[in-house]
Amino acid sequence: MAVGAPPSIDIPPVPGFRFAATASGIKASGTDDLLLFAMTPGCHAAGVFTRNQIVAAPVVLCRERLAGGVARALVVNSGNANAANGPEGLLDARAMTSRVGALLGVPEHLVLAASTGVIGQRLPVDRPLKAMDRLVASLAGENWERAARAIMTTDTFPKAASRGFRLRGRECLMAGIAKGAGMIHPDMATLLAFFFTDAAVSAAALNGILHQVMAGSFNAITIDGDTSTNDTALVFASGLAGNVPLTSADEPEAGPLIAAFSDLAAELAEMIVRDGEGATKLIRVMVEGARDEAEANQVAMAVAKSPLVKTACFGQDPNWGRILAAVGYAGVPLDPATVSIHLGDVPIVVGGVRAPGYREERGEEVMSREEIPIRIDLGLGQSRRTVLTCDFSHDYVSINADYRT
Amino acid sequence: MAVGAPPSIDIPPVPGFRFAATASGIKASGTDDLLLFAMTPGCHAAGVFTRNQIVAAPVVLCRERLAGGVARALVVNSGNANAANGPEGLLDARAMTSRVGALLGVPEHLVLAASTGVIGQRLPVDRPLKAMDRLVASLAGENWERAARAIMTTDTFPKAASRGFRLRGRECLMAGIAKGAGMIHPDMATLLAFFFTDAAVSAAALNGILHQVMAGSFNAITIDGDTSTNDTALVFASGLAGNVPLTSADEPEAGPLIAAFSDLAAELAEMIVRDGEGATKLIRVMVEGARDEAEANQVAMAVAKSPLVKTACFGQDPNWGRILAAVGYAGVPLDPATVSIHLGDVPIVVGGVRAPGYREERGEEVMSREEIPIRIDLGLGQSRRTVLTCDFSHDYVSINADYRT
Repeated sequence: MAVGAPPSIDIPPVPGFRFAATASGIKASGTDDLLLFAMTPGCHAAGVFTRNQIVAAPVVLCRERLAGGVARALVVNSGNANAANGPEGLLDARAMTSRVGALLGVPEHLVLAASTGVIGQRLPVDRPLKAMDRLVASLAGENWERAARAIMTTDTFPKAASRGFRLRGRECLMAGIAKGAGMIHPDMATLLAFFFTDAAVSAAALNGILHQVMAGSFNAITIDGDTSTNDTALVFASGLAGNVPLTSADEPEAGPLIAAFSDLAAELAEMIVRDGEGATKLIRVMVEGARDEAEANQVAMAVAKSPLVKTACFGQDPNWGRILAAVGYAGVPLDPATVSIHLGDVPIVVGGVRAPGYREERGEEVMSREEIPIRIDLGLGQSRRTVLTCDFSHDYVSINADYRT
Repeated sequence: MAVGAPPSIDIPPVPGFRFAATASGIKASGTDDLLLFAMTPGCHAAGVFTRNQIVAAPVVLCRERLAGGVARALVVNSGNANAANGPEGLLDARAMTSRVGALLGVPEHLVLAASTGVIGQRLPVDRPLKAMDRLVASLAGENWERAARAIMTTDTFPKAASRGFRLRGRECLMAGIAKGAGMIHPDMATLLAFFFTDAAVSAAALNGILHQVMAGSFNAITIDGDTSTNDTALVFASGLAGNVPLTSADEPEAGPLIAAFSDLAAELAEMIVRDGEGATKLIRVMVEGARDEAEANQVAMAVAKSPLVKTACFGQDPNWGRILAAVGYAGVPLDPATVSIHLGDVPIVVGGVRAPGYREERGEEVMSREEIPIRIDLGLGQSRRTVLTCDFSHDYVSINADYRT
């Protein structure tokens, strides 16, 4: 199930990047589970990772290897998270990146890795190792949909998109793929998201821009409040567009890149929520009138994570008392008398109480939509924050009760 | 549905307390929805309330009226929370306590109130007001089960228990009733819990003891992480046991009262989790080896609140990766290499990785039980904390999607 029809994927090659996917046998289903990206020499890279203190082996590798800000390859497997596997997990991850390095003729420390799937089962590393030859042989610049499919776990549709933008007089392109579905919560919000651009950007600028973009996109969504051991977002810039390189995220000329990247990341983040496990509704929690953005975020997250709000959305019940209760326990000092809430354009709470003249049918109409906008005005200040989430359905329970069986 | 057979209720009268329940018509079902307690003159009282900033009208009343530490009556309705109803809500609550005061001949400011049910609908106050006469006429010292039933909402069984104890040479008794089921999370953990003892205890001592007892019982359970606008726990001490009054919670002689009260509160708290909305499992999350109790609690709550852990319990899946991931995102600094986890007596994680020799069947056996003990040793210190929760089932979703329909 997913909220809304998945967008079609029609993305041109991004100069500087070749990739290929295959079924290596990690997934019992026999579908693609291994994805390799090869980058042109001098490709810059930056990453952000889960804040979970239990981190998967590939996250450990990436953190070490991104120190130089350069990457030549990325190998990703789905079907096994390679997390909580101790020193053996690290050996397995290194075996994969070492093989990739040898086959591509690049230093191993420039090969990054990512994994997604079940935690705590040893990766059957011989299978991806065996598949690596044919993967390298089939590297090409096209078929982003297949790439996006290869990293899916409980996702029901592949997530990829692209944006063009103009940077210092050159036409540039950025493509991105992501996978999500469960264990979605900042920070990071998705298990895996990878972005590829031909713009020329220094490693430092790329890192600054990535953090800025993530805060407004992947860190503004939540499915179930659980953060994963594997959450990884990486961005690569090949520089082949030939623009004079950006050297700082603060340069005014960074604007079009930041705008395109933000827009692309927001689109992928929204796709992840639309494909939230068992989701039947997309819920947009917009908090305004907060003293600062952190407080706006705190209230929006409390509402977006409330199982009672999420089940009410599934049941299409305009139970605004639950929304108001979540606002009240968010931990932000407030005065109920200044709080108002809209469902779509329908005022349901004014001054902390049921809005005058509110009729239940009007709330029900909004709740029956596939997208439910909840707008909360705290009446305390000028700051705002929007968080996306989905509802809690029977299917969420089914998917997660039976995930490994 | 509930985990385990509900205990039978066989509680003798507690000297100093009379009560009665009736169906006043607030609940459409026609079942009891109004409960009145009358206390002997000089009865001491103390209370703790929700930390939600949106509070129901009766909570506002109780906070004001408990300042003197004396109460003569308590009126409780179910079926309507009388929350988020603005000044009218407060007027309705006052109308009820004023009527009770007049009928019992006690000052209104010694009458407490509590409500539970749907938020944000005006209380049809004429109905309880009309029923008050017959309620006062039928006050008696028996039928605790009926009292416990009258405060139920989505609860599937009434929750009441008692304990005897000896205080300064006198035999004393304490009875308690509670209701819970959803919106259960510290602080407070239950919508409503009321305790009645004939022990003589000063208001100050009673207040100190109540806070101490709640921390280890009602604040150590979570169903869905939502705190309600109405959470209320009250304790009343009539003094009719005739002991020399306790004047401080720190007196050594307070021991037997604290022990009995703690034990009683823990029993009722566990009943609430057993009757958690849609619960099929009781999950006991025991964290030990923490640096302090606050950190132990933080980790235990993260695990107990994780939708992924709770759905895995429903699915009887020993998915220890999810438990470990929740430990990792709890926000407590830790070293995965010192973390171990037991499911019942079965070691599943040692040093942050799958326990040597662990076989899936052994984990499955524990997960198939009605009570699932999860023991987590952080390996950091000597402090511990146990939190009770239940699983996330299809029925949880059904109950909360359709609550008002």
